[in-house]
Amino acid sequence: MFERLRGTRDFLPNEMAARKKVFSSIKKTVEEFGFFETDTPAIELFELYSIKSGEEIIEELYAFQDKGGRMISLRPELTPSVVRVLVSRAKELSFPVKWYSIPRLWRYERPQSGRLREFYQLNIDIFGSEDSRSDSEVISCAIKLLCDLGFDESDIEVRISDRRMLHEFLLNLGIDSYQDVLKIIDKREKVSEKDFNEMLTEIGMSATQIKEIEDFLNSKGNFLKSIENLSKIYKGEGISNVIESLRKIAENLNDRGYEKFTTFDPSIVRGLDYYTGMVFEVHDRKREFRALFGGGRYDNLAELFGGEHIPAVGFGMGDAVLELMMRRKNIWPEEKVEIDVFIATIGNVEKEVSKLLTSLRNSGFRVDFDFMSRNLSNQMKFANKLGASSLLIVGERDLKEGNVTLRDLKSGEESKISFDKFVSSPSNYLTKVL
Amino acid sequence: MFERLRGTRDFLPNEMAARKKVFSSIKKTVEEFGFFETDTPAIELFELYSIKSGEEIIEELYAFQDKGGRMISLRPELTPSVVRVLVSRAKELSFPVKWYSIPRLWRYERPQSGRLREFYQLNIDIFGSEDSRSDSEVISCAIKLLCDLGFDESDIEVRISDRRMLHEFLLNLGIDSYQDVLKIIDKREKVSEKDFNEMLTEIGMSATQIKEIEDFLNSKGNFLKSIENLSKIYKGEGISNVIESLRKIAENLNDRGYEKFTTFDPSIVRGLDYYTGMVFEVHDRKREFRALFGGGRYDNLAELFGGEHIPAVGFGMGDAVLELMMRRKNIWPEEKVEIDVFIATIGNVEKEVSKLLTSLRNSGFRVDFDFMSRNLSNQMKFANKLGASSLLIVGERDLKEGNVTLRDLKSGEESKISFDKFVSSPSNYLTKVL
Repeated sequence: MFERLRGTRDFLPNEMAARKKVFSSIKKTVEEFGFFETDTPAIELFELYSIKSGEEIIEELYAFQDKGGRMISLRPELTPSVVRVLVSRAKELSFPVKWYSIPRLWRYERPQSGRLREFYQLNIDIFGSEDSRSDSEVISCAIKLLCDLGFDESDIEVRISDRRMLHEFLLNLGIDSYQDVLKIIDKREKVSEKDFNEMLTEIGMSATQIKEIEDFLNSKGNFLKSIENLSKIYKGEGISNVIESLRKIAENLNDRGYEKFTTFDPSIVRGLDYYTGMVFEVHDRKREFRALFGGGRYDNLAELFGGEHIPAVGFGMGDAVLELMMRRKNIWPEEKVEIDVFIATIGNVEKEVSKLLTSLRNSGFRVDFDFMSRNLSNQMKFANKLGASSLLIVGERDLKEGNVTLRDLKSGEESKISFDKFVSSPSNYLTKVL
Repeated sequence: MFERLRGTRDFLPNEMAARKKVFSSIKKTVEEFGFFETDTPAIELFELYSIKSGEEIIEELYAFQDKGGRMISLRPELTPSVVRVLVSRAKELSFPVKWYSIPRLWRYERPQSGRLREFYQLNIDIFGSEDSRSDSEVISCAIKLLCDLGFDESDIEVRISDRRMLHEFLLNLGIDSYQDVLKIIDKREKVSEKDFNEMLTEIGMSATQIKEIEDFLNSKGNFLKSIENLSKIYKGEGISNVIESLRKIAENLNDRGYEKFTTFDPSIVRGLDYYTGMVFEVHDRKREFRALFGGGRYDNLAELFGGEHIPAVGFGMGDAVLELMMRRKNIWPEEKVEIDVFIATIGNVEKEVSKLLTSLRNSGFRVDFDFMSRNLSNQMKFANKLGASSLLIVGERDLKEGNVTLRDLKSGEESKISFDKFVSSPSNYLTKVL
């Protein structure tokens, strides 16, 4: 017997039915925000990732030489592909563009809760706008899609900051080893306070500087209020610009009705190197799971890929943590299949069944029937397993009088109907479930 | 600048919108036939393919060693994965099961018209039934999904045969090198008549035998009538059973109303080794393109994969030939995006726009807005590019009187509406396109 590879998943129809509901809710929300779906290959040239993805991602690549001798890789993230398309077809586009995709991605990691080797990840991005309203649009979309799935502000928290803010703050403190500090801060939640302090000491921070950094990182709270407080404390021109841009995002999110979801949290820096401004993460409030979303502004990537300057803001959300969180809150859809009608048969009624099948399907009903010549009781059990709403019983004896029997499997109500009338317009007797 | 790999594709939103319509039509039809969607990994152990896929497929594998030292492969076809799942989870299932999936597949071939290195392929299968009604169900589904896409019997032909028929026929002729003859017949349409004869001669066929084989292969025509003719000519027990099973399939397809689509064609043998009974292909009548579908019965695969005996029948349909055929007939959907409403702005109306965005999206409308501070004329051009049905103009002056302007972009009709009324129930003023 063969097994599937570790960290990959199979989905039977009932499991798939639940996932399809989740994915279609996500797509609906994202399309309400005016994002359009795109599609790119699952395999790309290896260099597409070596140019800008972080070291961590490179180590986890499913990379290999193809039969033509090229080094290629399964995609570990979508952004490089999307930026490649953007740059190569920029002339066809009217900016700003709002794109989404739910690609399958692959990373060779140790499989664990919420982390798989093969997974799906929603990606949405706005390209071509530096305006803070595009940042708000992306964050709002993240919040709204979680609300549409059944979460509320008691479940989730959107933690927002700006990379430049930390940079300006460190410069104010006289620290210019920005990248080194950034990497340590990114690990802060995974290590003890003692280890965190030691790591900062190792790269030359003084005790006073460490204290200032910790105070700054702890200055989290209501997004707009925190920003207003910061604007009183920090007055330098650089930091004031950053504060002003965050203030606009915060005000816009409040106007849209999302104040209760958002927190200012300067400890959010995101692992990837390419973020240039606003960054955010979405977490469950209880912090049982790893981050559900991560995103932010990355204005320099298109240039790095050989294109014009195209500012960008977006996020990625993996399906594994989402599923864990939905299951924890009991809002993962029920895992069951369903059809509209099952045709059960008694005796030799094959010709009539053929006509019914064609008629019902031409009218858009989802129909199955017995092709195993089982007895009626077993056919009814099977109809229930298929989640049939109605049962149409076609029997030799009934047919001699020109009738079939239609049973509503929810209410148990049953009625005899003329075969001819039913077959010529089934929609008069049945309604679709979906 | 980076390029995509040869034989792979990028889809911009307008291209994707057309493809989504095609895929959703396909899914709708397949679900009307009571097939449920499943999902399996894109990467599998290499041995899953070496055990049963034909040599041709093995040569084209994207196979490589993963970081754990296992030989793995991108899937070149879905069937091995589906049978793996079936065998490993058979105890959870109520047979028969009807499954479908539209996986992405990869084959390292020379890219050409209708043949790509990365493509999508609809797969549908019925597992657990030997009854000829399941063969008819699968063929009917193929026909119906093409009809629902806009094809009719003047465009497409379903060519049906049975592998056992050829086998029995050859045995009658005193030929037992069945597999060798099969391989030559599979190539018949790609070589000249002379080469075909030579190939048969090389494996020891006499001129008389070759003549008989050619006559048999040319005995194509109306499915049921051809079968009835054959039943008069061939009387042996083996061949009679095969003829009887094909007759049932033909009668059932006629009862369902699909007679005009089907042809009996004994030259159809299918390249893959694992077919055990009925086999079929779908072609365009003009034979401009390669086969659009191929499928048939494969009753022994589950056992070969270490499971119980689970009979199976199904087909695969790639998206590349389908697209070529639909474009040739001008039924490929128009490549355009659309949204319900675009909010254009004059002056500083950001707070009102935020309220409108939340309200419209909470009511399920697909909405975009100006976040580039463009002039009204450029905003209107942009709204048209997004395929907006309606334009909502929010202006400082209008708002002083409490109004916004709604314009229907199809009819050009325009009306002033109270901002408060509109924001509290936009569905009173707008209808959704989708």
